[in-house]
Parts: sequence; C-alpha cells; structure tokens
Amino acid sequence: MRKAAFMKIRIHVSLKPGVLDPQGRAVHHALEGLGFAGVDDVRIGRLIELELADNTSDDAIAEMCEKLLANTVIENYRIEKVAA
Amino acid sequence: MRKAAFMKIRIHVSLKPGVLDPQGRAVHHALEGLGFAGVDDVRIGRLIELELADNTSDDAIAEMCEKLLANTVIENYRIEKVAA
Repeated sequence: MRKAAFMKIRIHVSLKPGVLDPQGRAVHHALEGLGFAGVDDVRIGRLIELELADNTSDDAIAEMCEKLLANTVIENYRIEKVAA
Repeated sequence: MRKAAFMKIRIHVSLKPGVLDPQGRAVHHALEGLGFAGVDDVRIGRLIELELADNTSDDAIAEMCEKLLANTVIENYRIEKVAA
C-alpha cells in the first residue's frame, strides 16, 4: 500500500481593495509612533498553511476557501502550491 | 523635486515550528466537520502588506518586524519585495 503523501498549500487571504482595514490602520499609527517615516499604507491579511493529501483536487481546495478559509464578501484569496 | 515613489513589501509572519496553534486546530476541526478529508495540518499566520517610501532601508524594514510586526519569541518572519 502506498504511504500517504502530503503536499503543502498556502492560502493568501487579503482584504478587497476599498474595504476598510482598522487593524492595518492601527499598525500604521503604531509604526509612526515608533518613529518610522515613509510608511504610506499597511494592510493586514491571513496566511493559511495547509498540509493536504496530495490527491486533493484543486476544486476541493477552492471549496475550502469559499466555505471557510476566506470571507469572499470582503476578502480575496490566492492558492499557492508550495514545492515539496 | 522628484515625486515620492513607493514600493510594496510583504511580510509573511508564521508561528515557529512546535509552537501550539489553537487557531489552526480550530480551522482543522471545522474543515473536517464540513466533510473535507485528507487535511493533515493547518497553521495560521499573518500577511502584512506595506507601502513604503522606496528609499526605506532593509535594516529599517527588519527593525519594523522586530519591534512591532512579529513577536519574535514565537514567530518567524520573511520579508518579500513585491515587483512594482
């Protein structure tokens, strides 16, 4: 029997342009408060690293994003297959 | 006078191996609850997108990470310069 093989997938979730990012603004103000100049904008997103069975289909991964990992009303997501 | 030019930087912040990730485990259980098979592990990190003046030094960016953007006791960070 073939030993189960896994693949590493990264999901990059970020707020859609135009969506207010209070967390990003708080970090922006904190950076300026620490004296860092030249910071024009800060946006905070999520980086989800998945170890999946290597026979998991692209459709299943997209479905995971649509149903749970990203709030597609206000967020975009990008699926990245990490070289083993 | 030269118009201020900005560059896009992405900071990938992830928990160090071995550090417990309760958020990742919650998502893992939720995926299984939705019927997705073959999920071996889930780790959640942060994706911070910065628009910085293009004369910001690498040292200054690293200092932003060390002082604010990452908790270096339990997190690793990777700085990515995004092509304009």
